[in-house]
Amino acid sequence: MGMVGGGEGSFIGAVHRTAAALDHRCALTAGAFSSDPARSTRSGRALGLPDSRTYRSWQEMIDRESALPADQRIDFVSVVTPNDSHHAIARAFIDAGFHVVCDKPITTTSAQAHDLVEAANAKGAVFCVTYNYTGYPLVRHARHLCRSGAIGGVRKVIVEYTQGWLASALERSESAGGFKQASWRTDPAQAGAGGAIGDIGSHAEHLTRFVTGLEVEALCADLTSFVDGRALDDDASVLLRFTNGARGMLTASQICVGQENNLRLRVWGEKGALDWSQETPNELRAWNESGAEQVIRRGNAGLAPDAIRATRLPPGHPEAFYEAFANIYAGFFEALAARANGTPFTNDAHFPTAHDGLIGVRFIEKTVENTNSNQKWTGL
Amino acid sequence: MGMVGGGEGSFIGAVHRTAAALDHRCALTAGAFSSDPARSTRSGRALGLPDSRTYRSWQEMIDRESALPADQRIDFVSVVTPNDSHHAIARAFIDAGFHVVCDKPITTTSAQAHDLVEAANAKGAVFCVTYNYTGYPLVRHARHLCRSGAIGGVRKVIVEYTQGWLASALERSESAGGFKQASWRTDPAQAGAGGAIGDIGSHAEHLTRFVTGLEVEALCADLTSFVDGRALDDDASVLLRFTNGARGMLTASQICVGQENNLRLRVWGEKGALDWSQETPNELRAWNESGAEQVIRRGNAGLAPDAIRATRLPPGHPEAFYEAFANIYAGFFEALAARANGTPFTNDAHFPTAHDGLIGVRFIEKTVENTNSNQKWTGL
Amino acid sequence: MGMVGGGEGSFIGAVHRTAAALDHRCALTAGAFSSDPARSTRSGRALGLPDSRTYRSWQEMIDRESALPADQRIDFVSVVTPNDSHHAIARAFIDAGFHVVCDKPITTTSAQAHDLVEAANAKGAVFCVTYNYTGYPLVRHARHLCRSGAIGGVRKVIVEYTQGWLASALERSESAGGFKQASWRTDPAQAGAGGAIGDIGSHAEHLTRFVTGLEVEALCADLTSFVDGRALDDDASVLLRFTNGARGMLTASQICVGQENNLRLRVWGEKGALDWSQETPNELRAWNESGAEQVIRRGNAGLAPDAIRATRLPPGHPEAFYEAFANIYAGFFEALAARANGTPFTNDAHFPTAHDGLIGVRFIEKTVENTNSNQKWTGL
Amino acid sequence: MGMVGGGEGSFIGAVHRTAAALDHRCALTAGAFSSDPARSTRSGRALGLPDSRTYRSWQEMIDRESALPADQRIDFVSVVTPNDSHHAIARAFIDAGFHVVCDKPITTTSAQAHDLVEAANAKGAVFCVTYNYTGYPLVRHARHLCRSGAIGGVRKVIVEYTQGWLASALERSESAGGFKQASWRTDPAQAGAGGAIGDIGSHAEHLTRFVTGLEVEALCADLTSFVDGRALDDDASVLLRFTNGARGMLTASQICVGQENNLRLRVWGEKGALDWSQETPNELRAWNESGAEQVIRRGNAGLAPDAIRATRLPPGHPEAFYEAFANIYAGFFEALAARANGTPFTNDAHFPTAHDGLIGVRFIEKTVENTNSNQKWTGL
Repeated sequence: MGMVGGGEGSFIGAVHRTAAALDHRCALTAGAFSSDPARSTRSGRALGLPDSRTYRSWQEMIDRESALPADQRIDFVSVVTPNDSHHAIARAFIDAGFHVVCDKPITTTSAQAHDLVEAANAKGAVFCVTYNYTGYPLVRHARHLCRSGAIGGVRKVIVEYTQGWLASALERSESAGGFKQASWRTDPAQAGAGGAIGDIGSHAEHLTRFVTGLEVEALCADLTSFVDGRALDDDASVLLRFTNGARGMLTASQICVGQENNLRLRVWGEKGALDWSQETPNELRAWNESGAEQVIRRGNAGLAPDAIRATRLPPGHPEAFYEAFANIYAGFFEALAARANGTPFTNDAHFPTAHDGLIGVRFIEKTVENTNSNQKWTGL
Repeated sequence: MGMVGGGEGSFIGAVHRTAAALDHRCALTAGAFSSDPARSTRSGRALGLPDSRTYRSWQEMIDRESALPADQRIDFVSVVTPNDSHHAIARAFIDAGFHVVCDKPITTTSAQAHDLVEAANAKGAVFCVTYNYTGYPLVRHARHLCRSGAIGGVRKVIVEYTQGWLASALERSESAGGFKQASWRTDPAQAGAGGAIGDIGSHAEHLTRFVTGLEVEALCADLTSFVDGRALDDDASVLLRFTNGARGMLTASQICVGQENNLRLRVWGEKGALDWSQETPNELRAWNESGAEQVIRRGNAGLAPDAIRATRLPPGHPEAFYEAFANIYAGFFEALAARANGTPFTNDAHFPTAHDGLIGVRFIEKTVENTNSNQKWTGL
Repeated sequence: MGMVGGGEGSFIGAVHRTAAALDHRCALTAGAFSSDPARSTRSGRALGLPDSRTYRSWQEMIDRESALPADQRIDFVSVVTPNDSHHAIARAFIDAGFHVVCDKPITTTSAQAHDLVEAANAKGAVFCVTYNYTGYPLVRHARHLCRSGAIGGVRKVIVEYTQGWLASALERSESAGGFKQASWRTDPAQAGAGGAIGDIGSHAEHLTRFVTGLEVEALCADLTSFVDGRALDDDASVLLRFTNGARGMLTASQICVGQENNLRLRVWGEKGALDWSQETPNELRAWNESGAEQVIRRGNAGLAPDAIRATRLPPGHPEAFYEAFANIYAGFFEALAARANGTPFTNDAHFPTAHDGLIGVRFIEKTVENTNSNQKWTGL
Repeated sequence: MGMVGGGEGSFIGAVHRTAAALDHRCALTAGAFSSDPARSTRSGRALGLPDSRTYRSWQEMIDRESALPADQRIDFVSVVTPNDSHHAIARAFIDAGFHVVCDKPITTTSAQAHDLVEAANAKGAVFCVTYNYTGYPLVRHARHLCRSGAIGGVRKVIVEYTQGWLASALERSESAGGFKQASWRTDPAQAGAGGAIGDIGSHAEHLTRFVTGLEVEALCADLTSFVDGRALDDDASVLLRFTNGARGMLTASQICVGQENNLRLRVWGEKGALDWSQETPNELRAWNESGAEQVIRRGNAGLAPDAIRATRLPPGHPEAFYEAFANIYAGFFEALAARANGTPFTNDAHFPTAHDGLIGVRFIEKTVENTNSNQKWTGL
C-alpha cells in the first residue's frame, strides 16, 4: 500500500491506514504524504517508513516505485488529498499500472470522473472509491432486504446526513484542527462545486443507490449557504424521482447544531420498510407487511451472506466506523487477489467503483444546476 | 357542548367528547350525529342524551337549540363531519350566534376558510380548529425555546408525518372500520384537493408555524398517489422557504408501511436545536450551542408557563393523545369563560383559530398547484 | 361513585375521578373528601357536588348514603386516604353493603388485609385494589405471552421501580406540594412498615405476579434509608425465588436522582423474553427463541383479547396513565354490571382484588422481616 | 508481543492481536498458540510468523525467547488460554523476566492470584488483566464524574451483564463454534468455581470498582444453573454493600434469551446519576441534581482527559469493542515505555492490574461461598 496525502494532522489518512491494516492483510510501504516535501518526510518517519520510500511528491513516487522490482513496489495507492487533486493523481497512477483507492467525491467534475472510469477500464486497474458507509454489515443486509423483494417494490426513500460542525464559520476560526478540515471543504477551488452536498450528500446518494438499486431520474434541489461569506452550500434539500417511480427526499447539512455524523436511510416498499442510522450501526429496524417491527442486530441468525462476510465480532460486541471502512478495503483486496491469481471476481457489494464515483459527481453537479434554475426538475 | 357528526363508528367524534369532558368542565347536551336521522337518534341514545336533544339534522339542531332559553342551550358546537361539510355547518352555527370547534382542515377551499374567518369576526364567535398536536405540553415548551431566542434564529426545519395505514387500497376493502375512515379521506368530493397533504400534512404545517413562528414564503411540492386508482395524494414531499430565510422539508405520507402516527418536528437554529415526536410526547430533545444534548421531560423543572398550564400529572406518569386534545379544548373554554365574564383574553398558545385554519387550507392548495406546475417555487 | 379522601391538594383522588369517568360510565355523586369537615365541604363544592352529598366524615357518609333509596345512593366507594385508614373505612363500607375500590397497599398489616378479604367474601362485595399499572394494554399482552407459553417456562425476572423525588428530605421541606405527598409516605404511622417498598415496591411485586403468574416462595431483602432522619426505607433491593424455581431481582427506590416513575419489568423464559417500561407504555419488546427482537405496539395486529379490550385509540395515538387507570375501573364496572344483571363474571385480568392486596402486604412485611434478620431466606 | 493460546478457532486471541496492533505500536513476533504442537505451528503460519518463533509449548517459548538477544525477543506475552492455566503460564513468564497481559479472571483461585501479585511485584513485571470494558472513553468519563464529586456520594449501583447464548445446552451441541466457547466455560476444571459469575460477572464487578472507586464490604448471592447438567452457574443475582454505605445489585446471566452482550452500569449519587451500556458505548446518560438528563457523547466538549486520551475518531464516527480493547493495551504500552525510558508512570485509569485481578477472583469465590450458606452476608 502506498499513500498520497494523509500526512501530519490529516484525519482521513490515518483512517485509511488503520482500516487497510485491520485484518493484517496489508502494510503501508510508501507514501507522498504532503505537497510540502519536508512535511512528507516527517510524516513518513512518524509512520515508521524508511526515507527511501517517502517521496517529496506523488510524481516522484510514481517514478521511483515504478522502477522497483514488481515484488517490492506497492500494489496500489490510496489517494486521500483534497478533491481537486484526485483526478490528476489517480490518472497518473492508473497510467503507471497501479491500482487505486480514492476518497470521495472521486473528482470535482463529471468529465474528470468519466475520464478515470475509462482510464481504469483501459488499463485494467482496480479502482475503489471509499464510500465507506456501505461497508457496514447491516447496510449490506438492508441491501439484501431491498433487492430480494422482502419489502416489495420501493416507493419512498428518506435519506439524511446531518452534521453541526460547520454551523459557525470554522473556516475562519483560529482553531487549528477545525480550521484545516473546514477550510478546504468550503473552498470551491479545492472542494469542487458542492459543499455539504459534495462532502456528505454524495455519501447519502451512494448509500441510497447501494441499498435500493434505484437510479435517480430527476431531482429538484435547494442548496443554501447559511454562514456569511461561505462560498459553497452548507445545507442541501433535494427532492428525488427514481426511475421506477419511487420518490425520495435527501438532505445533507453541516449547520445542524448538535448533530454529529448522522447518516440515516429509511426505505419504504410496498410490503415492508427499513431504517438504519450510521451512529448506531449495529442495529437495523425493519417492518413487514403487517407493520410489525423487528430490530435486526449485527451477528443475528439469518443475515445475508454479504453481511456475514463483513462481520468480525459476535453479537453485542459492537463494531463501528473502522471495521466498516476496513470492509471496503477487504473487498478491494479480494479483487486484487483475484486479479493476481487469475480467478474470477464479481463485485457483489464488495466495494464502490469509479462508476459509482462518476454517478456521485453527476449528482452533485445536477443539484447545483437545479438550484440555480427556475425549472422544477433536472434530469440525470 | 353540542356535536355535529361523530355518530356510531366515528373515531374523532368520541375523541372530541372525551377530550372536552376530561377536566369535568363541559358536558355534551345536544347533537346531530349523522346525516341519517335514525342513526343520529341511536347515537344520541348510546351517549345518554334525551331524544329531545338529538336532532335529525344540523339545520334542525340550530333551529331548536336557538329556541331554547340561553341557560339551557348549548354554548358551542363541535363540527366533526367530513371536510366538505365544515363550511356550511360552521357558517350556519356562527350566524345563529354559537361558538364553534371545527376539525381540520377547516374547509376544502381557502375561499370558504376566508369566509369563516370573516363571519366569526363579524359575529364575535370564538372559533377553534382542532390542530390537536399543539396541545402537548412539550410542543408548547418547544415553541418557547424557539420564540425566546434560546436556539437563535431558525435556519432549518424538518417536519414529517408518516403513517402506513393507507399503503394498500383500504378504501376498496371490505374491512368495515378501515373502509369508513379511508373512503372519505381518499375521495376528493369529501376531503378536498389534498389527500395525505390535507389529512396529516396540514398538521405538520401548523405544528411548524406554531413552534417556530415562521411563515412559509414559497414551496415546491411533489404529491404522488402510489395506490392504483386513488384520486388523491397518499404521499407528499415539500421543500419550504420561510420568510426569514430558513429552509425546510416537509413530508406527509400514508403509505409508509410500519409507521403509525409519526409526527416529528426538528428545528435547527443558529445556536441550538430541538426534536420532538408525537409518539413519545413526554420528551423533547434539545441541543445548545456547544452541541450538548438534553432530554427534557414533561413536568421537569424550568418549563415554560404554557407547558406547565397544559400538564395534569407528575413527571413519569405519562400523558398522551387525549390530554393534548383536551388542552385545545381547555384553551377554548378559557376564551369562552373570558367572553362570558367580560374579562380580557389573549390567545397565547391556547388554541388554533380560524385564521390558522385558513393558512392551512392555502398551504394545501399551493402544494397541489405546485405539483401540477413546471415552475419550481410557488409563493404563498 | 362515592369517594373517601381525595380533597383539595390530593393527587390520587383526582386521578381516580378522571379515570372512573373517562368512558362516561360513572359519575361522582357523593364524598367525604377530608377528615377536616370544612375542607371536605369546600372540596365537594369545587367538584360540583351538592352540599347534601358532601359529608363531614366517612362514617356520616355511610349512614346517610345507606338511608337513601337504592337507585339514588352510590354503588361503590373509592378509598384514597393514607394507608393506615384503609382498613377501617373499607371494612365499614363493606359491612354497609357497598362495593369498594381501594388504593394500594390495601392495609398496613396482613391481618387487616386478611380481614378485608374475608369480609368482602362474606358480604359479596366487589373489591378492587388499584394496582393501576396492570391496566396498560401491553402489560396484559405481556401476561398473555407468559401464560400462553410463548416464552416457555419463566426462569428469570428483573423488576425495577425507580424514582428520584425523595432523594432529599422533601418531607421536611417547606414546599407545599412535595411536603404533603412526602410526609405521610415517610411516616410509619400512616404508611405502615414499608417506605419505598410499600409505596412502589408493591406495584413491582404485583406487576410481576400479574404478568408471570408466579408466586414468590422466598425472598432476601436489603431495605435502606439513605436520607438522614427518615424512619422508613427509601431504597429496597430484593432477591426472589419463585415456586417454579425461577429467580428474580426486585428494586424499589425513591432516591434515584433523575428517575421519575420508572417501573420496568423484564422476564426471560426458556425460549423467549419480554421487556416493558411504564414510561413508554405503548411498546413492548419481545424476543423469540432465536433471539430476534420484535417491538410490539399497542394496537398492532395479533394482540391478546385482554389487550384489545383495554385499548381506546388507534396505533400511534398514544395512550397513557389515565387510560390504564381507567381500565382498572372498567374491569371493576364489568363486575358490578354482571352482579347487577345476575350474569356470570370471570375476573380474567380485569382488576386486582383484595386477595392481590393481601399478598402485597405480606410481601412488604416479609421484606422488612428479612432485612432485620441474619437469615438469608424468608419464606412467604 | 508474544501470545500463549489464541490459535485456530479462538475468538479472544484474534481480538488481542487486532487490539494490540490497532495503533501500529506493536507487532506479534512469537507464540505458542495451542497445547497441540501441530496446531500451534499451523496457527503461527496462518498469522505470518516464521516457524522459528512458533513454539510447541509455552515452556519452550520461555526457554527459546529468553535465549534471544534482548532486542529480538518479545517484550511481553499475552496469555489467552482457559482460566485454569493462567497461573502457571503467567508465573513462569514473570519469573523469566517478561511482562504479562492476561485474560480475566486472572486465575481460578485467589491464592494463585495473590501469588501472581507478589511475583510481579518482586520481579518488577508490568502485569495487565484485560478487563477490556474499562477501555471505553465514556467509562473513563463516568469514572471522572463519580470521582470528581459531580454526582455526590454514591448511594446505589445497579450493574447488569446479560447474555443469552447459553440459554440452552450449547456445551453439549454439535455446533463447532459454539461448542468450543461453551464447553470450557461450563467446566469447573477449566473455568474455576464460577460460571457466569466468573466469565462475565467479574467484568461487572471490575467496571463498578473502576467507575465508582468503591469496594464491596459484603455480599449476598444466589447463583443458579438453569440448564440441566450444567455444573457451573449460568445465572447470578447478588446484593452488594459497599464500604461507604452504598448498596448495589449485580446480575450476571447467560440464559437471558435475546440479550447479546449487555453490560450496563447505573450509579446514583446524592446529587446526580449516570447510566452507560456497552452495546451503545458512544453515549453516556447523566443526570444532575435537578433531575435534568444530559446525553454525553464520545468526543463532546468537556470530557475528562482520561476519556480524551482514549479517543481516536471525531464525534459521530462510532468507536467500539476493538478500540476499547486497544485502549487497555495502549495503557499497558505506556507503562512499558516508561519502564524502558526510566520515566515515572502513574496508572491513572490506564489498565487493570494483577491486584484488580485478585479482587475479582475473591469476588467470585465469595459469591460461591455465600450461595452455599444460610448466612445472609459474606464479608470480603
